[in-house]
Amino acid sequence: MSDRDRKPNFRRGGGPVPGKSRESGRRPPWRDREARPDGPAILYGWHTVTAALANPQRQIRSLWLTENAARRLTEENIGTRITPEIVRPSQIDARLGPDAVHQGLLAEADPLPSPDIDTLPQHGIVLVLDQITDPHNVGAILRSAAAFAVKAIVTTARHSPEATGVLAKSASGALELVPIVTVQNLARALTGLNAQGFMTVGLDSAGTEDLGAVELRQPLALVLGAEGKGLRQLTRETCSVVARLDMPGEIKSLNVSNAAVLALYIGASRLGLMG
Amino acid sequence: MSDRDRKPNFRRGGGPVPGKSRESGRRPPWRDREARPDGPAILYGWHTVTAALANPQRQIRSLWLTENAARRLTEENIGTRITPEIVRPSQIDARLGPDAVHQGLLAEADPLPSPDIDTLPQHGIVLVLDQITDPHNVGAILRSAAAFAVKAIVTTARHSPEATGVLAKSASGALELVPIVTVQNLARALTGLNAQGFMTVGLDSAGTEDLGAVELRQPLALVLGAEGKGLRQLTRETCSVVARLDMPGEIKSLNVSNAAVLALYIGASRLGLMG
Repeated sequence: MSDRDRKPNFRRGGGPVPGKSRESGRRPPWRDREARPDGPAILYGWHTVTAALANPQRQIRSLWLTENAARRLTEENIGTRITPEIVRPSQIDARLGPDAVHQGLLAEADPLPSPDIDTLPQHGIVLVLDQITDPHNVGAILRSAAAFAVKAIVTTARHSPEATGVLAKSASGALELVPIVTVQNLARALTGLNAQGFMTVGLDSAGTEDLGAVELRQPLALVLGAEGKGLRQLTRETCSVVARLDMPGEIKSLNVSNAAVLALYIGASRLGLMG
Repeated sequence: MSDRDRKPNFRRGGGPVPGKSRESGRRPPWRDREARPDGPAILYGWHTVTAALANPQRQIRSLWLTENAARRLTEENIGTRITPEIVRPSQIDARLGPDAVHQGLLAEADPLPSPDIDTLPQHGIVLVLDQITDPHNVGAILRSAAAFAVKAIVTTARHSPEATGVLAKSASGALELVPIVTVQNLARALTGLNAQGFMTVGLDSAGTEDLGAVELRQPLALVLGAEGKGLRQLTRETCSVVARLDMPGEIKSLNVSNAAVLALYIGASRLGLMG
Protein backbone atom coordinates (compact mmCIF):
# COMPACT_ATOMS: atom_id res chain seq x y z
CA MET A 1 0.00 0.00 0.00
CA SER A 2 1.27 3.42 -0.87
CA ASP A 3 0.74 6.30 1.48
CA ARG A 4 -0.06 8.37 -1.55
CA ASP A 5 -2.88 6.12 -2.50
CA ARG A 6 -4.58 6.60 0.78
CA LYS A 7 -4.30 10.22 1.64
CA PRO A 8 -4.57 12.33 -1.48
CA ASN A 9 -3.04 15.74 -1.27
CA PHE A 10 -4.63 18.33 -3.47
CA ARG A 11 -3.30 21.37 -1.75
CA ARG A 12 -0.83 22.58 -4.30
CA GLY A 13 -3.07 21.80 -7.20
CA GLY A 14 -6.10 23.68 -6.21
CA GLY A 15 -5.21 26.38 -3.74
CA PRO A 16 -6.80 29.77 -3.81
CA VAL A 17 -6.11 31.56 -7.01
CA PRO A 18 -5.22 35.19 -7.03
CA GLY A 19 -5.84 37.25 -10.11
CA LYS A 20 -8.93 37.67 -12.17
CA SER A 21 -11.56 35.01 -12.48
CA ARG A 22 -14.68 34.74 -14.57
CA GLU A 23 -16.62 33.33 -11.71
CA SER A 24 -18.95 35.54 -9.85
CA GLY A 25 -19.89 35.18 -6.24
CA ARG A 26 -17.78 34.02 -3.39
CA ARG A 27 -15.57 30.98 -3.61
CA PRO A 28 -15.79 28.48 -0.81
CA PRO A 29 -12.71 28.73 1.36
CA TRP A 30 -9.96 26.38 0.32
CA ARG A 31 -9.68 23.41 2.62
CA ASP A 32 -6.91 20.92 2.96
CA ARG A 33 -7.47 17.66 1.04
CA GLU A 34 -10.65 18.74 -0.60
CA ALA A 35 -10.70 19.78 -4.20
CA ARG A 36 -13.27 22.25 -5.45
CA PRO A 37 -14.95 20.60 -8.39
CA ASP A 38 -15.94 23.97 -9.79
CA GLY A 39 -12.48 25.46 -9.38
CA PRO A 40 -10.12 26.25 -12.21
CA ALA A 41 -7.44 23.81 -13.29
CA ILE A 42 -4.03 24.93 -12.08
CA LEU A 43 -1.43 23.94 -14.66
CA TYR A 44 2.31 24.43 -14.19
CA GLY A 45 5.54 23.18 -15.68
CA TRP A 46 6.78 23.29 -19.26
CA HIS A 47 5.09 20.19 -20.71
CA THR A 48 1.82 20.71 -18.87
CA VAL A 49 1.39 24.38 -19.79
CA THR A 50 2.63 24.14 -23.39
CA ALA A 51 0.29 21.19 -23.99
CA ALA A 52 -2.58 23.28 -22.63
CA LEU A 53 -1.61 26.20 -24.89
CA ALA A 54 -1.62 23.79 -27.85
CA ASN A 55 -5.09 22.47 -27.00
CA PRO A 56 -7.82 24.58 -28.64
CA GLN A 57 -10.40 22.98 -26.33
CA ARG A 58 -8.65 24.40 -23.29
CA GLN A 59 -9.82 27.84 -22.15
CA ILE A 60 -6.90 29.62 -20.52
CA ARG A 61 -8.03 32.16 -17.92
CA SER A 62 -4.70 33.57 -16.89
CA LEU A 63 -1.04 32.87 -17.56
CA TRP A 64 1.91 33.69 -15.36
CA LEU A 65 5.35 33.46 -16.93
CA THR A 66 8.81 34.30 -15.72
CA GLU A 67 10.96 36.29 -18.12
CA ASN A 68 12.97 33.17 -18.91
CA ALA A 69 9.89 31.09 -19.64
CA ALA A 70 8.43 33.85 -21.83
CA ARG A 71 11.70 33.97 -23.77
CA ARG A 72 11.75 30.20 -24.20
CA LEU A 73 8.17 30.21 -25.52
CA THR A 74 9.12 32.91 -28.01
CA GLU A 75 12.23 30.99 -29.07
CA GLU A 76 10.17 27.86 -29.62
CA ASN A 77 7.52 29.86 -31.45
CA ILE A 78 4.73 28.87 -29.05
CA GLY A 79 1.88 31.35 -28.88
CA THR A 80 0.37 32.19 -25.50
CA ARG A 81 -3.19 32.92 -26.75
CA ILE A 82 -3.73 35.41 -23.93
CA THR A 83 -1.50 38.19 -22.67
CA PRO A 84 0.74 36.67 -20.01
CA GLU A 85 1.61 38.37 -16.77
CA ILE A 86 5.39 38.46 -16.35
CA VAL A 87 6.23 37.48 -12.77
CA ARG A 88 9.22 36.57 -10.63
CA PRO A 89 9.83 32.87 -9.97
CA SER A 90 9.20 33.51 -6.28
CA GLN A 91 5.66 34.65 -7.06
CA ILE A 92 4.91 31.27 -8.62
CA ASP A 93 6.70 29.54 -5.74
CA ALA A 94 4.46 31.41 -3.35
CA ARG A 95 1.35 30.09 -5.10
CA LEU A 96 2.42 26.49 -5.57
CA GLY A 97 4.66 25.84 -2.60
CA PRO A 98 8.40 25.27 -2.65
CA ASP A 99 8.39 21.71 -4.01
CA ALA A 100 6.57 22.31 -7.28
CA VAL A 101 8.92 22.46 -10.25
CA HIS A 102 6.99 24.98 -12.30
CA GLN A 103 9.81 25.99 -14.64
CA GLY A 104 8.43 29.50 -14.71
CA LEU A 105 4.98 28.69 -16.14
CA LEU A 106 1.64 28.73 -14.36
CA ALA A 107 -1.75 28.79 -16.05
CA GLU A 108 -5.23 28.95 -14.65
CA ALA A 109 -7.67 27.29 -17.04
CA ASP A 110 -11.18 25.96 -17.31
CA PRO A 111 -11.47 22.25 -16.63
CA LEU A 112 -11.91 20.22 -19.81
CA PRO A 113 -15.38 18.83 -20.51
CA SER A 114 -16.07 15.20 -19.61
CA PRO A 115 -17.32 13.24 -22.63
CA ASP A 116 -20.32 10.99 -22.29
CA ILE A 117 -19.50 7.32 -21.80
CA ASP A 118 -21.84 6.40 -24.66
CA THR A 119 -19.60 8.24 -27.09
CA LEU A 120 -16.49 6.06 -26.63
CA PRO A 121 -15.07 4.60 -29.84
CA GLN A 122 -15.70 0.94 -30.56
CA HIS A 123 -12.02 0.09 -30.92
CA GLY A 124 -8.79 0.39 -28.99
CA ILE A 125 -8.35 0.48 -25.21
CA VAL A 126 -9.90 2.50 -22.42
CA LEU A 127 -8.70 2.53 -18.82
CA VAL A 128 -11.16 2.46 -15.93
CA LEU A 129 -9.94 3.66 -12.53
CA ASP A 130 -11.80 2.43 -9.45
CA GLN A 131 -11.18 5.02 -6.73
CA ILE A 132 -7.48 5.58 -7.33
CA THR A 133 -7.05 8.71 -5.28
CA ASP A 134 -3.39 9.64 -5.42
CA PRO A 135 -2.84 12.47 -7.92
CA HIS A 136 0.77 11.44 -8.67
CA ASN A 137 -0.38 7.96 -9.61
CA VAL A 138 -3.35 9.14 -11.64
CA GLY A 139 -1.09 11.66 -13.41
CA ALA A 140 1.46 8.96 -14.26
CA ILE A 141 -1.37 6.71 -15.50
CA LEU A 142 -2.65 9.51 -17.75
CA ARG A 143 0.84 9.97 -19.17
CA SER A 144 1.16 6.23 -19.91
CA ALA A 145 -2.36 6.27 -21.37
CA ALA A 146 -1.29 8.99 -23.81
CA ALA A 147 1.85 6.99 -24.65
CA PHE A 148 -0.27 3.94 -25.49
CA ALA A 149 -2.93 5.88 -27.40
CA VAL A 150 -5.66 5.03 -24.91
CA LYS A 151 -9.04 6.36 -26.08
CA ALA A 152 -10.29 7.56 -22.70
CA ILE A 153 -9.99 7.18 -18.94
CA VAL A 154 -13.18 6.42 -17.04
CA THR A 155 -13.19 7.45 -13.42
CA THR A 156 -15.65 8.13 -10.64
CA ALA A 157 -16.71 11.65 -9.76
CA ARG A 158 -16.07 10.91 -6.10
CA HIS A 159 -12.87 9.40 -4.68
CA SER A 160 -10.85 10.64 -7.64
CA PRO A 161 -8.42 13.54 -7.64
CA GLU A 162 -9.29 16.67 -9.62
CA ALA A 163 -7.56 17.15 -12.96
CA THR A 164 -5.36 19.95 -11.72
CA GLY A 165 -2.09 20.71 -9.94
CA VAL A 166 0.06 17.71 -9.08
CA LEU A 167 -2.03 15.38 -11.23
CA ALA A 168 -1.67 17.68 -14.25
CA LYS A 169 2.08 18.03 -13.64
CA SER A 170 2.57 14.26 -13.30
CA ALA A 171 0.55 13.76 -16.49
CA SER A 172 3.14 15.89 -18.31
CA GLY A 173 0.71 17.21 -20.92
CA ALA A 174 -1.41 14.05 -21.18
CA LEU A 175 -4.41 15.81 -19.63
CA GLU A 176 -4.85 17.54 -23.00
CA LEU A 177 -4.64 14.27 -24.94
CA VAL A 178 -6.68 11.67 -23.09
CA PRO A 179 -10.37 12.43 -22.47
CA ILE A 180 -11.50 11.78 -18.90
CA VAL A 181 -15.02 10.38 -18.61
CA THR A 182 -16.39 11.02 -15.13
CA VAL A 183 -19.19 8.76 -13.95
CA GLN A 184 -21.28 8.66 -10.80
CA ASN A 185 -21.44 4.90 -10.48
CA LEU A 186 -18.64 2.70 -11.77
CA ALA A 187 -20.50 -0.61 -11.77
CA ARG A 188 -23.27 0.96 -13.85
CA ALA A 189 -20.67 2.40 -16.21
CA LEU A 190 -19.07 -1.04 -16.60
CA THR A 191 -22.46 -2.59 -17.26
CA GLY A 192 -22.90 0.03 -19.97
CA LEU A 193 -19.49 -0.75 -21.45
CA ASN A 194 -20.33 -4.46 -21.48
CA ALA A 195 -23.57 -3.63 -23.30
CA GLN A 196 -21.64 -1.50 -25.81
CA GLY A 197 -19.55 -4.56 -26.65
CA PHE A 198 -16.46 -3.81 -24.58
CA MET A 199 -14.46 -6.62 -23.06
CA THR A 200 -14.02 -5.39 -19.47
CA VAL A 201 -10.95 -6.87 -17.76
CA GLY A 202 -10.37 -6.15 -14.08
CA LEU A 203 -6.80 -6.38 -12.79
CA ASP A 204 -6.56 -8.00 -9.39
CA SER A 205 -4.00 -10.18 -7.69
CA ALA A 206 -6.85 -12.63 -7.00
CA GLY A 207 -7.62 -12.87 -10.72
CA THR A 208 -8.37 -16.26 -12.21
CA GLU A 209 -5.91 -15.99 -15.13
CA ASP A 210 -2.69 -14.21 -15.97
CA LEU A 211 -3.49 -11.21 -18.20
CA GLY A 212 -0.99 -12.52 -20.75
CA ALA A 213 -3.05 -15.71 -21.09
CA VAL A 214 -6.43 -14.02 -21.53
CA GLU A 215 -7.73 -13.89 -25.09
CA LEU A 216 -8.24 -10.15 -25.40
CA ARG A 217 -10.35 -8.37 -27.98
CA GLN A 218 -11.27 -4.80 -28.89
CA PRO A 219 -12.81 -2.62 -27.65
CA LEU A 220 -11.02 -3.39 -24.39
CA ALA A 221 -11.54 -1.75 -21.00
CA LEU A 222 -8.78 -2.41 -18.46
CA VAL A 223 -10.03 -1.79 -14.92
CA LEU A 224 -7.62 -0.87 -12.11
CA GLY A 225 -8.32 -0.56 -8.41
CA ALA A 226 -6.60 1.38 -5.66
CA GLU A 227 -3.52 -0.12 -4.10
CA GLY A 228 -4.25 -2.02 -0.95
CA LYS A 229 -7.99 -2.04 -1.45
CA GLY A 230 -7.92 -3.33 -5.02
CA LEU A 231 -11.12 -3.50 -7.03
CA ARG A 232 -14.34 -3.09 -5.10
CA GLN A 233 -16.47 -6.20 -5.06
CA LEU A 234 -19.19 -4.83 -7.33
CA THR A 235 -16.56 -3.62 -9.79
CA ARG A 236 -15.00 -7.07 -9.85
CA GLU A 237 -18.34 -8.77 -10.34
CA THR A 238 -19.24 -6.50 -13.26
CA CYS A 239 -16.04 -7.17 -15.25
CA SER A 240 -16.08 -9.76 -18.05
CA VAL A 241 -12.84 -11.24 -16.70
CA VAL A 242 -10.69 -10.63 -13.64
CA ALA A 243 -7.03 -11.19 -14.46
CA ARG A 244 -3.80 -11.02 -12.50
CA LEU A 245 -0.31 -9.98 -13.54
CA ASP A 246 2.03 -12.91 -12.92
CA MET A 247 5.55 -11.96 -11.94
CA PRO A 248 8.45 -14.15 -10.89
CA GLY A 249 9.62 -12.30 -7.75
CA GLU A 250 8.76 -12.32 -4.07
CA ILE A 251 6.53 -9.26 -4.22
CA LYS A 252 3.32 -9.93 -6.11
CA SER A 253 1.83 -6.47 -6.44
CA LEU A 254 3.03 -3.28 -8.10
CA ASN A 255 2.49 0.41 -7.62
CA VAL A 256 -0.82 1.06 -9.40
CA SER A 257 0.68 3.21 -12.16
CA ASN A 258 3.30 0.48 -12.76
CA ALA A 259 0.52 -2.12 -12.98
CA ALA A 260 -1.37 0.15 -15.38
CA VAL A 261 1.52 0.58 -17.81
CA LEU A 262 2.23 -3.14 -17.80
CA ALA A 263 -1.43 -3.96 -18.49
CA LEU A 264 -1.45 -1.38 -21.29
CA TYR A 265 1.68 -2.84 -22.85
CA ILE A 266 0.32 -6.38 -22.69
CA GLY A 267 -3.08 -5.27 -23.98
CA ALA A 268 -1.72 -3.13 -26.83
CA SER A 269 0.78 -5.83 -27.84
CA ARG A 270 -1.82 -8.61 -27.88
CA LEU A 271 -4.30 -6.47 -29.82
CA GLY A 272 -1.73 -5.40 -32.42
CA LEU A 273 -1.97 -1.74 -31.34
CA MET A 274 1.73 -1.07 -30.85
CA GLY A 275 1.91 0.90 -34.11
CA MET B 1 9.53 15.96 -16.40
CA SER B 2 8.15 15.23 -13.00
CA ASP B 3 8.49 17.76 -10.24
CA ARG B 4 9.30 14.89 -7.97
CA ASP B 5 12.24 13.91 -10.04
CA ARG B 6 13.79 17.30 -9.70
CA LYS B 7 13.33 18.33 -6.14
CA PRO B 8 13.67 15.36 -3.87
CA ASN B 9 12.00 15.64 -0.54
CA PHE B 10 13.59 13.66 2.21
CA ARG B 11 12.09 15.50 5.08
CA ARG B 12 9.69 12.95 6.39
CA GLY B 13 11.99 10.08 5.80
CA GLY B 14 15.01 11.27 7.66
CA GLY B 15 13.90 13.87 10.11
CA PRO B 16 15.31 14.09 13.59
CA VAL B 17 14.59 10.98 15.49
CA PRO B 18 13.43 11.14 19.07
CA GLY B 19 14.06 8.26 21.37
CA LYS B 20 17.21 6.36 22.10
CA SER B 21 19.99 5.97 19.60
CA ARG B 22 23.21 4.03 19.58
CA GLU B 23 25.09 6.87 18.05
CA SER B 24 27.28 8.96 20.24
CA GLY B 25 28.12 12.59 19.69
CA ARG B 26 25.99 15.26 18.21
CA ARG B 27 23.97 14.78 15.08
CA PRO B 28 24.22 17.41 12.43
CA PRO B 29 21.03 19.46 12.41
CA TRP B 30 18.48 18.15 9.99
CA ARG B 31 18.25 20.24 6.89
CA ASP B 32 15.54 20.30 4.28
CA ARG B 33 16.30 18.21 1.19
CA GLU B 34 19.50 16.75 2.51
CA ALA B 35 19.63 13.24 3.81
CA ARG B 36 22.04 12.23 6.52
CA PRO B 37 23.91 9.24 5.16
CA ASP B 38 24.74 8.08 8.67
CA GLY B 39 21.20 8.41 9.94
CA PRO B 40 18.93 5.52 10.79
CA ALA B 41 16.40 4.22 8.31
CA ILE B 42 12.89 5.35 9.22
CA LEU B 43 10.44 2.62 8.28
CA TYR B 44 6.67 2.95 8.55
CA GLY B 45 3.58 1.26 7.25
CA TRP B 46 2.49 -2.35 7.49
CA HIS B 47 4.35 -3.89 4.55
CA THR B 48 7.52 -1.90 5.12
CA VAL B 49 7.82 -2.61 8.84
CA THR B 50 6.74 -6.27 8.73
CA ALA B 51 9.24 -6.91 5.90
CA ALA B 52 11.95 -5.34 8.05
CA LEU B 53 10.93 -7.48 11.04
CA ALA B 54 11.17 -10.55 8.79
CA ASN B 55 14.66 -9.63 7.58
CA PRO B 56 17.37 -11.04 9.88
CA GLN B 57 19.92 -8.69 8.27
CA ARG B 58 17.96 -5.68 9.45
CA GLN B 59 18.93 -4.32 12.88
CA ILE B 60 15.87 -2.73 14.45
CA ARG B 61 16.79 0.04 16.91
CA SER B 62 13.34 1.01 18.10
CA LEU B 63 9.77 0.15 17.30
CA TRP B 64 6.70 2.27 17.87
CA LEU B 65 3.36 0.53 17.59
CA THR B 66 -0.18 1.64 18.19
CA GLU B 67 -2.33 -0.76 20.21
CA ASN B 68 -4.17 -1.78 17.06
CA ALA B 69 -0.96 -2.48 15.16
CA ALA B 70 0.46 -4.47 18.08
CA ARG B 71 -2.72 -6.54 18.18
CA ARG B 72 -2.58 -7.15 14.44
CA LEU B 73 1.05 -8.32 14.66
CA THR B 74 0.06 -10.72 17.45
CA GLU B 75 -2.91 -12.01 15.47
CA GLU B 76 -0.69 -12.63 12.45
CA ASN B 77 1.92 -14.23 14.65
CA ILE B 78 4.66 -11.77 13.66
CA GLY B 79 7.40 -11.35 16.24
CA THR B 80 8.73 -7.88 16.96
CA ARG B 81 12.30 -8.93 17.92
CA ILE B 82 12.60 -5.96 20.26
CA THR B 83 10.20 -4.66 22.87
CA PRO B 84 7.92 -2.19 21.15
CA GLU B 85 6.84 1.09 22.62
CA ILE B 86 3.05 1.37 22.54
CA VAL B 87 2.11 4.84 21.34
CA ARG B 88 -0.90 6.79 20.20
CA PRO B 89 -1.37 7.25 16.44
CA SER B 90 -0.92 10.99 16.91
CA GLN B 91 2.61 10.42 18.24
CA ILE B 92 3.57 8.73 14.97
CA ASP B 93 1.74 11.43 13.02
CA ALA B 94 3.80 14.01 14.86
CA ARG B 95 7.03 12.36 13.76
CA LEU B 96 6.13 11.66 10.15
CA GLY B 97 3.81 14.50 9.27
CA PRO B 98 0.11 14.27 8.56
CA ASP B 99 0.32 12.73 5.07
CA ALA B 100 2.25 9.56 5.92
CA VAL B 101 0.02 6.50 6.10
CA HIS B 102 1.90 4.67 8.81
CA GLN B 103 -0.88 2.25 9.80
CA GLY B 104 0.35 2.41 13.38
CA LEU B 105 3.88 1.10 12.79
CA LEU B 106 7.16 3.01 12.89
CA ALA B 107 10.61 1.47 13.19
CA GLU B 108 14.01 3.04 13.41
CA ALA B 109 16.61 0.67 11.99
CA ASP B 110 20.18 0.49 10.81
CA PRO B 111 20.61 0.98 7.09
CA LEU B 112 21.29 -2.27 5.25
CA PRO B 113 24.83 -2.89 4.06
CA SER B 114 25.67 -2.16 0.41
CA PRO B 115 27.13 -5.23 -1.35
CA ASP B 116 30.21 -4.85 -3.50
CA ILE B 117 29.51 -4.58 -7.21
CA ASP B 118 32.00 -7.38 -7.91
CA THR B 119 29.78 -9.81 -6.02
CA LEU B 120 26.77 -9.59 -8.34
CA PRO B 121 25.53 -12.92 -9.71
CA GLN B 122 26.35 -13.76 -13.31
CA HIS B 123 22.73 -14.34 -14.28
CA GLY B 124 19.43 -12.54 -14.21
CA ILE B 125 18.82 -8.78 -14.33
CA VAL B 126 20.17 -5.84 -12.39
CA LEU B 127 18.82 -2.29 -12.58
CA VAL B 128 21.17 0.69 -12.70
CA LEU B 129 19.75 4.10 -11.72
CA ASP B 130 21.55 7.20 -13.03
CA GLN B 131 20.70 9.99 -10.60
CA ILE B 132 17.02 9.28 -10.16
CA THR B 133 16.37 11.47 -7.17
CA ASP B 134 12.68 11.22 -6.39
CA PRO B 135 12.07 8.84 -3.47
CA HIS B 136 8.56 7.88 -4.61
CA ASN B 137 9.89 6.83 -7.99
CA VAL B 138 12.89 4.97 -6.58
CA GLY B 139 10.61 3.23 -4.08
CA ALA B 140 8.20 2.15 -6.83
CA ILE B 141 11.18 0.93 -8.89
CA LEU B 142 12.43 -1.13 -5.93
CA ARG B 143 8.99 -2.67 -5.55
CA SER B 144 8.86 -3.60 -9.25
CA ALA B 145 12.42 -4.91 -9.00
CA ALA B 146 11.35 -7.27 -6.21
CA ALA B 147 8.33 -8.33 -8.28
CA PHE B 148 10.61 -9.24 -11.19
CA ALA B 149 13.27 -10.95 -9.04
CA VAL B 150 15.93 -8.37 -9.91
CA LYS B 151 19.31 -9.34 -8.38
CA ALA B 152 20.35 -5.85 -7.30
CA ILE B 153 19.91 -2.15 -7.88
CA VAL B 154 23.06 -0.15 -8.60
CA THR B 155 22.88 3.51 -7.76
CA THR B 156 25.19 6.44 -7.12
CA ALA B 157 26.07 7.53 -3.61
CA ARG B 158 25.30 11.13 -4.55
CA HIS B 159 22.11 12.33 -6.27
CA SER B 160 20.17 9.36 -4.97
CA PRO B 161 17.62 9.37 -2.18
CA GLU B 162 18.42 7.59 1.06
CA ALA B 163 16.81 4.21 1.66
CA THR B 164 14.45 5.52 4.29
CA GLY B 165 11.08 7.20 4.81
CA VAL B 166 9.02 7.81 1.69
CA LEU B 167 11.29 5.62 -0.44
CA ALA B 168 10.95 2.72 2.00
CA LYS B 169 7.17 3.18 2.15
CA SER B 170 6.83 3.31 -1.63
CA ALA B 171 9.00 0.20 -1.89
CA SER B 172 6.38 -1.64 0.22
CA GLY B 173 8.87 -4.07 1.77
CA ALA B 174 11.14 -4.41 -1.28
CA LEU B 175 13.99 -2.66 0.52
CA GLU B 176 14.49 -5.90 2.44
CA LEU B 177 14.49 -8.03 -0.73
CA VAL B 178 16.59 -6.21 -3.34
CA PRO B 179 20.22 -5.39 -2.46
CA ILE B 180 21.22 -1.81 -3.24
CA VAL B 181 24.79 -1.44 -4.50
CA THR B 182 25.99 2.12 -3.98
CA VAL B 183 28.84 3.32 -6.18
CA GLN B 184 30.79 6.54 -6.35
CA ASN B 185 31.13 6.68 -10.13
CA LEU B 186 28.46 5.18 -12.35
CA ALA B 187 30.46 5.11 -15.59
CA ARG B 188 33.23 3.21 -13.79
CA ALA B 189 30.66 0.81 -12.37
CA LEU B 190 29.23 0.19 -15.83
CA THR B 191 32.73 -0.40 -17.23
CA GLY B 192 33.16 -2.96 -14.44
CA LEU B 193 29.82 -4.62 -15.30
CA ASN B 194 30.82 -4.78 -18.97
CA ALA B 195 34.12 -6.42 -17.93
CA GLN B 196 32.19 -8.89 -15.74
CA GLY B 197 30.27 -9.96 -18.84
CA PHE B 198 27.07 -8.00 -18.31
CA MET B 199 25.14 -6.71 -21.26
CA THR B 200 24.49 -3.09 -20.24
CA VAL B 201 21.43 -1.60 -21.92
CA GLY B 202 20.67 2.09 -21.43
CA LEU B 203 17.07 3.21 -21.86
CA ASP B 204 16.77 6.53 -23.66
CA SER B 205 14.23 8.03 -26.02
CA ALA B 206 17.15 8.72 -28.39
CA GLY B 207 18.11 5.02 -28.40
CA THR B 208 19.03 3.39 -31.70
CA GLU B 209 16.68 0.39 -31.37
CA ASP B 210 13.42 -0.49 -29.69
CA LEU B 211 14.16 -2.55 -26.56
CA GLY B 212 11.84 -5.27 -27.84
CA ALA B 213 14.06 -5.67 -30.92
CA VAL B 214 17.39 -5.89 -29.05
CA GLU B 215 18.80 -9.38 -28.71
CA LEU B 216 19.15 -9.48 -24.94
CA ARG B 217 21.30 -11.88 -22.94
CA GLN B 218 22.11 -12.58 -19.29
CA PRO B 219 23.50 -11.16 -17.12
CA LEU B 220 21.61 -8.04 -18.12
CA ALA B 221 21.93 -4.55 -16.64
CA LEU B 222 19.09 -2.17 -17.53
CA VAL B 223 20.18 1.46 -17.04
CA LEU B 224 17.61 4.20 -16.36
CA GLY B 225 18.17 7.94 -16.20
CA ALA B 226 16.26 10.71 -14.49
CA GLU B 227 13.19 12.08 -16.18
CA GLY B 228 13.87 15.16 -18.21
CA LYS B 229 17.62 14.81 -18.04
CA GLY B 230 17.75 11.18 -19.16
CA LEU B 231 21.02 9.28 -19.10
CA ARG B 232 24.14 11.37 -18.64
CA GLN B 233 26.41 11.37 -21.68
CA LEU B 234 29.15 9.27 -20.09
CA THR B 235 26.55 6.78 -18.86
CA ARG B 236 25.15 6.46 -22.35
CA GLU B 237 28.58 6.03 -23.89
CA THR B 238 29.50 3.28 -21.45
CA CYS B 239 26.41 1.12 -22.13
CA SER B 240 26.70 -1.79 -24.59
CA VAL B 241 23.47 -0.66 -26.26
CA VAL B 242 21.16 2.33 -25.91
CA ALA B 243 17.56 1.33 -26.58
CA ARG B 244 14.26 3.17 -26.63
CA LEU B 245 10.76 2.05 -25.68
CA ASP B 246 8.54 2.42 -28.73
CA MET B 247 4.94 3.29 -27.97
CA PRO B 248 2.08 4.10 -30.32
CA GLY B 249 0.71 7.27 -28.68
CA GLU B 250 1.42 10.98 -28.85
CA ILE B 251 3.52 11.08 -25.70
CA LYS B 252 6.84 9.30 -26.14
CA SER B 253 8.19 9.19 -22.60
CA LEU B 254 6.92 7.63 -19.40
CA ASN B 255 7.27 8.32 -15.73
CA VAL B 256 10.62 6.72 -14.85
CA SER B 257 9.15 4.00 -12.64
CA ASN B 258 6.68 3.16 -15.43
CA ALA B 259 9.58 2.94 -17.91
CA ALA B 260 11.47 0.73 -15.44
CA VAL B 261 8.66 -1.81 -15.02
CA LEU B 262 8.11 -2.00 -18.76
CA ALA B 263 11.82 -2.57 -19.39
CA LEU B 264 11.83 -5.25 -16.67
CA TYR B 265 8.84 -7.01 -18.18
CA ILE B 266 10.34 -6.95 -21.67
CA GLY B 267 13.76 -8.05 -20.36
CA ALA B 268 12.42 -10.84 -18.14
CA SER B 269 10.08 -12.10 -20.88
CA ARG B 270 12.81 -12.16 -23.54
CA LEU B 271 15.26 -13.87 -21.21
CA GLY B 272 12.76 -16.53 -20.11
CA LEU B 273 12.79 -15.26 -16.52
CA MET B 274 9.06 -14.90 -16.03
CA GLY B 275 8.97 -18.04 -13.92
